[in-house]
Amino acid sequence: MIALVGCGTVGGGTALLLTRDIEHIKAKTGLNIGLKYVVDINFENAKALGIPPTLYETDYQKVIDDPEVTIVIELVGGLTFARDVVTKALNAKKNVVTANKALLANYGESLFRLARENNVCIGFEASCAGGIPIVNAITTGMAVNKIDAIYGIVNGTCNYILTQMIDKGQSYKNALKGAQKAGLAEADPTLDVNGMDSAHKISILSSLCFGYNCELDHVSASGIENIDIYDVMLGKEMDYTIKLLAIGEAHGSKLSLRVHPAFISNTHPLARISGPFNGVSLYGHAVGHTMYYGRGAGALPTASAIGADIISVANGTQKINFDNYKFWPDLTEKPTYMEPSEIASKFYLRLNVEDHVGVTATVTRILAANDISISAISQKEPKPEEPANKRIPLVILLHKTTKGKLDTAITSLQKESKISKNIIVIPVIDEKAENIR
Amino acid sequence: MIALVGCGTVGGGTALLLTRDIEHIKAKTGLNIGLKYVVDINFENAKALGIPPTLYETDYQKVIDDPEVTIVIELVGGLTFARDVVTKALNAKKNVVTANKALLANYGESLFRLARENNVCIGFEASCAGGIPIVNAITTGMAVNKIDAIYGIVNGTCNYILTQMIDKGQSYKNALKGAQKAGLAEADPTLDVNGMDSAHKISILSSLCFGYNCELDHVSASGIENIDIYDVMLGKEMDYTIKLLAIGEAHGSKLSLRVHPAFISNTHPLARISGPFNGVSLYGHAVGHTMYYGRGAGALPTASAIGADIISVANGTQKINFDNYKFWPDLTEKPTYMEPSEIASKFYLRLNVEDHVGVTATVTRILAANDISISAISQKEPKPEEPANKRIPLVILLHKTTKGKLDTAITSLQKESKISKNIIVIPVIDEKAENIR
Repeated sequence: MIALVGCGTVGGGTALLLTRDIEHIKAKTGLNIGLKYVVDINFENAKALGIPPTLYETDYQKVIDDPEVTIVIELVGGLTFARDVVTKALNAKKNVVTANKALLANYGESLFRLARENNVCIGFEASCAGGIPIVNAITTGMAVNKIDAIYGIVNGTCNYILTQMIDKGQSYKNALKGAQKAGLAEADPTLDVNGMDSAHKISILSSLCFGYNCELDHVSASGIENIDIYDVMLGKEMDYTIKLLAIGEAHGSKLSLRVHPAFISNTHPLARISGPFNGVSLYGHAVGHTMYYGRGAGALPTASAIGADIISVANGTQKINFDNYKFWPDLTEKPTYMEPSEIASKFYLRLNVEDHVGVTATVTRILAANDISISAISQKEPKPEEPANKRIPLVILLHKTTKGKLDTAITSLQKESKISKNIIVIPVIDEKAENIR
Repeated sequence: MIALVGCGTVGGGTALLLTRDIEHIKAKTGLNIGLKYVVDINFENAKALGIPPTLYETDYQKVIDDPEVTIVIELVGGLTFARDVVTKALNAKKNVVTANKALLANYGESLFRLARENNVCIGFEASCAGGIPIVNAITTGMAVNKIDAIYGIVNGTCNYILTQMIDKGQSYKNALKGAQKAGLAEADPTLDVNGMDSAHKISILSSLCFGYNCELDHVSASGIENIDIYDVMLGKEMDYTIKLLAIGEAHGSKLSLRVHPAFISNTHPLARISGPFNGVSLYGHAVGHTMYYGRGAGALPTASAIGADIISVANGTQKINFDNYKFWPDLTEKPTYMEPSEIASKFYLRLNVEDHVGVTATVTRILAANDISISAISQKEPKPEEPANKRIPLVILLHKTTKGKLDTAITSLQKESKISKNIIVIPVIDEKAENIR
């Protein structure tokens, strides 16, 4: 029997599937699973969804102590109470299904170890990219592949905000307000928009992809709060779409894990992932490029992923994979990371300069001195809200260079009196070449 | 131990993964699998790939008789010898992994039954959409979903040809020649371009999606051989991309399974699946729209899918799913099918008419008399190669109507002397609205 702890949005959707749709699930999967408890302190959502009150329980210790419960679904969120529930459930030899990326990104290694010590397993499909079965794809679908890279749009809130900016020309602030109105951003959206939520997810997925215990504090993260609609539109003109990308790359024996806004070439399928949808590109040594698309959030889409975990835990396949595969974070070593300065990319630069003609020579000289070559340079119309006597924007696209060289060049550029200190830098991602071998 | 039967393109790729990469696969999956035989009558490809000659075997009966062999990989293709190999392997209580869509589309039910009688299982991830783990996504990732529809671009040859037509304005004939030169179309491309290969795949996938035994002879199939570059380009102007779509739709208790060229709105992610890539959209009642993208063919991409099957057969998870799930075609009933005339769609029509002004009233009258409404109508420049005195093209976009009504209207239109008999009809697919519930 199953106990569900936390009946908010996702918990409600899950409880709905496990009650209203239970006969369909039994008929399809052949499993006689049943929901025994819905644990929360507030049952308004459960009541509104028609979840039978006979399931309501306020004392989660009762769940832990009930030997009939073999699967505990943790949908509380956060790190404190959720960690307590999961730890107690595992210690009571119950399997755990969770959608909690923060919990796994922070305590995954120890929780996986605890599960192994208690001869149970953890399902966490819903923790990354909502309804997309991406954990399943990486672990089983890609089983024989060496993964070269993973690129994900894994935060629906950010993607919705950026899509509104791109499609409607809205400022970040207005697009955020719109997302909050549409129920797609929290009142306090910090963890979403600052990139930390995406960092949680890429640390979890990278551990599976690369077979290392990828720790959260080695994921560099920047968010979308400072994206200027002006740059979004200039990128659009050049056939680039701005996205918040979560990136994991293997470079020989070193990994680079990072989250940042990037201009993606419109020829890349990820550029087409719009609104609240998520998309994840995987590059395998045998399969080449595969991509997975779907809703990254929402009650029923996320419950779909939780449901997949429940089925695979209940029928025993999750436990087999948990026991056999060697890439779970409690079994693997910590990776060696690339220095951020070593990371190579194309870049978009926007400088504000006093005198275009005079300054171009200075800019090209400084870039050349740092071994950086220019693929395009153009003077743009000033931003509409700026008075006519303001500095004019100079947009430069750079060929592939390292972040280290670029940072040195930017420091030099900022010393020039005719160039404003605020230089906008956005990495540019063309479609990654596959390396099928 | 594993025996591989058929060492052509995909067999060679699979043998390579199971020899060169075997230590990596063991380290990742924890499985001590080993390739014992490569069965063929010609080992040139195997030699070229460096597959050790100690594995070569010409007599497949030896494989069947060897009790050490627990998994037989059938990569022979076709229906005769392949069926014999698979039947003998199952009767010898060996699990089977196959990439053979024609075999499963024609004999899936009986082969699944035979596997069940012998307490073994069949893995067939590679039979549909090459390296994309789509069988895995449908069976496990979507486990709790009722699938409303599946739309797939599942033939890389056709997609490559259509992409060349769209991007380079090539005629079908020239694009086909190019595909043959690039090794992406067989010398006899009939099964690919006439839609039958896609029909095989959609019958297999629909059985899993809808939980019915979907028989091949209920999939209506038309191919790309008669697509005129002129219509491709007119569609492109209207922001539609032509694709060969394999479609499975549930309409209440009835199914519609079909393969045909369609104009897809460029806002749909499937419109962006280009070149030899495949893409499959699934619509689930809980998860909404998910899409899966990757290489539909090629030695190593297909071997990636075969490898996933080998792992899941070897670690026992495939057998558990095979035993538990109730949607395998030997366990399900035959569906009720929609009449083709009931199928509703938007449509693109191209008529060649003698006198635009005079004829438009006739056309609109006939369409209206059949309860068909027009969303756009425009006279086009005649095709460049046609002499100036030829009839002129009239392009009409129709709102959603049924194929039955349209067929009646077309019969009436063809009776008009000022309208040429050859009326081009292409269904138009906008992004399907999700029905999350």
